[in-house]
Amino acid sequence: MASWRDNIRQVEPYVPGEQPKNTNVIKLNTNENPYGPSPRVKAVQDNEDLLRLYPDPTAGALVDALAEYHGVDASQVFVGVGSDDVLAMSFLTFFNSDKPILFPDITYSFYDVWAELFRIPYKQMPLDENFRLKIDDYKGENGGIVFPNPNAPTGIYESLDHVEEIIKNNPDVIVIVDEAYIDFGGETALPLIDKYDNLVVVRTFSKSRSMAGLRIGYAISNPELIKALNDVKYSYNSYTMNRPSLVLGVESIHDDAYFREKVGQIIATRERFVKEIAELGFTCLPSSANFVFATHESIPAKEIFAAAKENNIYVRYFDKPRIDNYLRISIGTDAEMDVFVSFLSKYVKEYK
Amino acid sequence: MASWRDNIRQVEPYVPGEQPKNTNVIKLNTNENPYGPSPRVKAVQDNEDLLRLYPDPTAGALVDALAEYHGVDASQVFVGVGSDDVLAMSFLTFFNSDKPILFPDITYSFYDVWAELFRIPYKQMPLDENFRLKIDDYKGENGGIVFPNPNAPTGIYESLDHVEEIIKNNPDVIVIVDEAYIDFGGETALPLIDKYDNLVVVRTFSKSRSMAGLRIGYAISNPELIKALNDVKYSYNSYTMNRPSLVLGVESIHDDAYFREKVGQIIATRERFVKEIAELGFTCLPSSANFVFATHESIPAKEIFAAAKENNIYVRYFDKPRIDNYLRISIGTDAEMDVFVSFLSKYVKEYK
Repeated sequence: MASWRDNIRQVEPYVPGEQPKNTNVIKLNTNENPYGPSPRVKAVQDNEDLLRLYPDPTAGALVDALAEYHGVDASQVFVGVGSDDVLAMSFLTFFNSDKPILFPDITYSFYDVWAELFRIPYKQMPLDENFRLKIDDYKGENGGIVFPNPNAPTGIYESLDHVEEIIKNNPDVIVIVDEAYIDFGGETALPLIDKYDNLVVVRTFSKSRSMAGLRIGYAISNPELIKALNDVKYSYNSYTMNRPSLVLGVESIHDDAYFREKVGQIIATRERFVKEIAELGFTCLPSSANFVFATHESIPAKEIFAAAKENNIYVRYFDKPRIDNYLRISIGTDAEMDVFVSFLSKYVKEYK
Repeated sequence: MASWRDNIRQVEPYVPGEQPKNTNVIKLNTNENPYGPSPRVKAVQDNEDLLRLYPDPTAGALVDALAEYHGVDASQVFVGVGSDDVLAMSFLTFFNSDKPILFPDITYSFYDVWAELFRIPYKQMPLDENFRLKIDDYKGENGGIVFPNPNAPTGIYESLDHVEEIIKNNPDVIVIVDEAYIDFGGETALPLIDKYDNLVVVRTFSKSRSMAGLRIGYAISNPELIKALNDVKYSYNSYTMNRPSLVLGVESIHDDAYFREKVGQIIATRERFVKEIAELGFTCLPSSANFVFATHESIPAKEIFAAAKENNIYVRYFDKPRIDNYLRISIGTDAEMDVFVSFLSKYVKEYK
């Protein structure tokens, strides 16, 4: 047995939501946006001849568009290949302490995967019985903090006061607030960037901007932390963002009206859906995201998950402690949700 | 001073070749291809509506196309965001020994950057006086080996016998052969994959396939090592390849005639260019790449570099020991090289 095996990094990879090959399904399992991106994104194509040239390593056009959109300086914006790339590089850049980093026990399931990958010690802090952060848990010694707000897969939003309390109580470590779903509800922590030098806010184009297929994410922070991120990025891959991402990302930012309209539609559909399934015996945690986390009063989530799948409706089920009786249901179009509600209505009635 | 600064990863990033904003230049500084990609790449666009969905995390279509093209199984192919991404992940995956990894002192300048980033011990082995690998240097104890063939920035190709000798003598570590430039000359190490279980061959679409702007690279090896790479990839970012890359990458692979034609043109232009500048007092190392490494008998490279730039001709100069009197000149179109030769001819004549 060749001894090179001893020096291969052993990891337990993250398992993404299933991507069915069959296109004849209602796909509510990976929190994608049911609407296409802005028509401007469809209309603009890069000059194909330029494909032969390296993209701008600074991703300047996209960084500038984001800086202007959020009212910050370009030196405060970092972009990457989806927020996963931005978060992974943030872990690698900011979490180099011997003390454990902290994040909730029920949260984005990539955090512990990155910690394992980069050999970062970590501690998972239990959410309370209502799936809320226990703020005091984040006041002890630690090597850094990361949490999504709204949280995933619960969809629960923590008030900005709570977020600020965590940031303020941890001046010696970096606090990452992962705002993948913030556009669907809640107040952003972005204004706190000026007040605290230890805050990094991470965003994505995959949910509210309907561009999961392009892989665009970004971080906003102070220039010093953004420079540290860029140094690591340039030490890993000078050109992470390809030309189509750069060109189409800018177009999305420039069509704010479309963006707001579609986000509004999804929120409206979500609220209607929550009410309709309540009548079928489901309870949803209060959601500020483009998905709901739902449990039924008598039918096990696992069974509903399997039955829905048989009917070509994909939702997400996590076979994990505390949440194994919940389904994470992405909000699709009204028509898609109607089909799902009809299915559930029939299923619940006939269940024995 | 906040103590979070103590836990930020300190790195000296790789400096990519300059990307001039001015488009009115002859750009021979980053080894791009002067010809556009296959017309098939231009003609095909993905269904824009699909941009809202996550790409296939397995990059299946592209992996399958590459497997078929190279006559290997799909389980032997790994794709990434340029060969930089593939190499960085390979370092992270395979180089976890306490012993130093080995690579040449004059080589792709990202190797030591990745080693620093991931805290991998390394030793740079001096090339001989003709800029050739000293094979015996790679026979001692080590934690892994990586080298480009042809080498960069020299363009020198090492025979497959030499490559095999290195692989054979290091059964206990992973040997990565970085074949970014192999299509422009020399024999690939791919057939050795079946013979040695410690070999990883890395390729890119950025040079011979004219697709630097899309960021596509890949590795071919045995299924066990490819699985280890994929495990790390899935632990870092499930979806590294965006939809345009996947769709357009496949089209490039499927147009082999165009690919061969353009590679042939570049080789012909290179040979002509080498002869023409020889008459002006330049010597080029024997190049098997899409660039030449050239030195002048009397004029310092640094001065030629600056003068060319003033005339809107960008080439690459490395202010490093042993190679600070060389220019790395990418091969452009015949017309571009003619302009450059005219400039050099005039410059050499008037130099005093």
